[in-house]
Amino acid sequence: MFSPQTYQDRRTALQGSIKNGILLFLGNIENPVNFEHNPYYFRQDSTFLYYFGIQEPRIAAIIDIDENKTIIFGDELSIDDIIWMGRQETLKEKSQKSGVSETLPYRELSQYILKAKTANRKVHYLPPYQSFNKILLSDLLGIKVAELQPSVEMIKAIVKQRSVKEPQEIVQIEQAVNVSNDMHLLAMRMARPGVKEYEIANAIQHLAGDKECQMSYPPIVTINGGILHNHYRLNTLKDGDLFLNDSGAETAMGYAGDLTRTFPVSTTFSTQQKEIYEVVLNAFENAQRLLKPGVKFRDIHLQASRHLVDGLVDLGLMKGNPEEAVKNHAHTLFFQCGLGHMMGLDVHDMEDLGEQYVGYTEDEPKDTKTFGLKSLRLGKSLETGFVVTVEPGIYMIPELIDIWQAENKNAEFINYDKVNEYRNFGGVRIEDDFVITNEGYKLLGNGLIKTVEEIENYRKEHIS
Amino acid sequence: MFSPQTYQDRRTALQGSIKNGILLFLGNIENPVNFEHNPYYFRQDSTFLYYFGIQEPRIAAIIDIDENKTIIFGDELSIDDIIWMGRQETLKEKSQKSGVSETLPYRELSQYILKAKTANRKVHYLPPYQSFNKILLSDLLGIKVAELQPSVEMIKAIVKQRSVKEPQEIVQIEQAVNVSNDMHLLAMRMARPGVKEYEIANAIQHLAGDKECQMSYPPIVTINGGILHNHYRLNTLKDGDLFLNDSGAETAMGYAGDLTRTFPVSTTFSTQQKEIYEVVLNAFENAQRLLKPGVKFRDIHLQASRHLVDGLVDLGLMKGNPEEAVKNHAHTLFFQCGLGHMMGLDVHDMEDLGEQYVGYTEDEPKDTKTFGLKSLRLGKSLETGFVVTVEPGIYMIPELIDIWQAENKNAEFINYDKVNEYRNFGGVRIEDDFVITNEGYKLLGNGLIKTVEEIENYRKEHIS
Repeated sequence: MFSPQTYQDRRTALQGSIKNGILLFLGNIENPVNFEHNPYYFRQDSTFLYYFGIQEPRIAAIIDIDENKTIIFGDELSIDDIIWMGRQETLKEKSQKSGVSETLPYRELSQYILKAKTANRKVHYLPPYQSFNKILLSDLLGIKVAELQPSVEMIKAIVKQRSVKEPQEIVQIEQAVNVSNDMHLLAMRMARPGVKEYEIANAIQHLAGDKECQMSYPPIVTINGGILHNHYRLNTLKDGDLFLNDSGAETAMGYAGDLTRTFPVSTTFSTQQKEIYEVVLNAFENAQRLLKPGVKFRDIHLQASRHLVDGLVDLGLMKGNPEEAVKNHAHTLFFQCGLGHMMGLDVHDMEDLGEQYVGYTEDEPKDTKTFGLKSLRLGKSLETGFVVTVEPGIYMIPELIDIWQAENKNAEFINYDKVNEYRNFGGVRIEDDFVITNEGYKLLGNGLIKTVEEIENYRKEHIS
Repeated sequence: MFSPQTYQDRRTALQGSIKNGILLFLGNIENPVNFEHNPYYFRQDSTFLYYFGIQEPRIAAIIDIDENKTIIFGDELSIDDIIWMGRQETLKEKSQKSGVSETLPYRELSQYILKAKTANRKVHYLPPYQSFNKILLSDLLGIKVAELQPSVEMIKAIVKQRSVKEPQEIVQIEQAVNVSNDMHLLAMRMARPGVKEYEIANAIQHLAGDKECQMSYPPIVTINGGILHNHYRLNTLKDGDLFLNDSGAETAMGYAGDLTRTFPVSTTFSTQQKEIYEVVLNAFENAQRLLKPGVKFRDIHLQASRHLVDGLVDLGLMKGNPEEAVKNHAHTLFFQCGLGHMMGLDVHDMEDLGEQYVGYTEDEPKDTKTFGLKSLRLGKSLETGFVVTVEPGIYMIPELIDIWQAENKNAEFINYDKVNEYRNFGGVRIEDDFVITNEGYKLLGNGLIKTVEEIENYRKEHIS
């Protein structure tokens, strides 16, 4: 945990930006796998972590703006609990570490909410993503799950605050990124013909675990990198395959890292692999240099797309005017997704609070219709303290190529004959994490090898 | 998956034991960790696995008894899904492997249920344990979550069927137990002063993962074995500690193993450790020999308790008549829990369906009041084909000793002075998995070392 003062300060700042009412924060529970008492590992809700820091299931908290008090609701251990689970720090002690002196039994929460509602006071709450909390909110508020109305005022205030990372949060994120770096180097040492994808996934998870980290998301470790969210891991690596590893660690305090590297299972890149890789790397480096306060991330995304098109024109897969190609979204045959997203206590930071608030503004909302842009999670102007990923890629998706070609879509920009030579190429993605500074940007963590030469040398050194 | 005929036969048998109405089976979903699209690993509901075998989130099934038809509800992939997740086997294809030819879109489920309700037909469903399915059932049936009434007729029929394992299920369970054996041997090779508990937990999970297994439950790997459900894993092992490892693998098809071994972090047992260990081992071996059809597991539990008391009397921790001691539950100061439980597709098999049906009968219900017996999950007569764990233990819990001593509880059977010499001893548990046969029992898996001599020799050989 950070210091009690940290949580106190964060709550005070939040309190100052909400007019009145009660702010209700629900912690997460231990979600059952196949029966009630066989749970998945516990992960506290990120907003709860941000304002209270307590990693404990089945607790809740209230900041009562009108009465200027903060209460944590939860139950102390019974002697039965102690016999089964051992003596632990009390909730009272944990709350004090969070700077909160008042605790009440969990069952008192419904009384408190009922009283507030009876007094016609506003009860602010966030969009629930775990079904347990949907039912809980429905019970607390006496309305149907489908009728829940999260507080936009509360969402906006929290997004504003959590978007700008404190220095101590950056320390945590760099710790996550450095463990992620080690995971990627391990994968580079392991990947060779005959190895199974899941063996690499298991090994990097083991490494993270030994550094007291979880995975910040289900790792994508695949020889079919053309499939964007590929969680199938039963393939065997073979010579000639491109291996894509998109994985990151999460620290014990909940902060995420998120990195991607792509490299050949054979120790060296083939000419085709190297050419595409360097197009992506060039787009990556250009995008990185554009990061600074005041620049719209949507514009950096489009610039990166331009650089991808430039490279694809050089290789003969695309043709015509690159700017026109991007305007017509012709690049989305190869780059179907977004350039990056916010990162922090969540790998897609605050995704539960709503992309429209986290990545966009009311004046410039998200384009939810256009293929490509509808998958861009971050469009708005960058600010000092934002932490973002940059992750351009080129993905060959046979099903998509066939659909576009049948429609002759964007034929003035795409050489379909040439593209079909690459239809089983797979995909290349390169991804790093950055914090926006007053001057521009800073790469988070100690840096991870990225050029063709660096990767080939590292693998030659470690693969016998 | 097993053969289509297997699932067909199981469904036919179930259908024959329910008078009328509709049997509704809900599959599990991908539960979110910290936002909707960041999920925990997917685990299908065990009953769904048993009757349909399909490992796919957000599907449901109906066996319509009245109209004698079976339908699987779920959605085929869209082109958008294929771009992001790759081309996969269709739900139609998966359903055929389950012996089901009729599939319908997921949204049609509510229509089907509505029609049945309108026609005043009975809709049978099981107790939901995941909140998502609580909400779904509430919506489908138009009643509040708190008012859901699972079908006892359906529960009883399923428990009867799933309790008796088929030979092909025993093959799966033995596979799980053998991977669990390897996990335990690895822990025995790793455990030495300076190692962290979590390093052992991570390593055994890695081993299981490389054999395409999950953990069947959160492993208990601890130097504080006196805490029964200890999931704290940050301690460092040191000379003199007893190390307790309660962990098991689950096969890709969902079948569980569940083993416990306890051994000293120093290569050899201390006299005190050895003495207590052999009391538990003796109780274990005696209990094992009692396993056979027709014997009540509750009686074996009480016999095991008697053997524990015999040993504790010999060591001077208890005194008086052992039978009287057990009758007075004096052994529960050391053995607070139950001797074992059913095991199968769940490590506590069918716990979601209700212990009163799985472990007990209406004529001889569970003793839910008496300390000790209230934690015994299985009491009823064993039958050929049941799979059970046997797991006696002796646990020193300082908090419990203090409470009993203050009350002078069972003072005629307990030498509190002597007991206090052991208050920081920790705990010993020994656990194996058995199938009940016509002749008696069969140990599942290839067997795992268990005597003091075997464990000391193995560790001397592997710890340098």
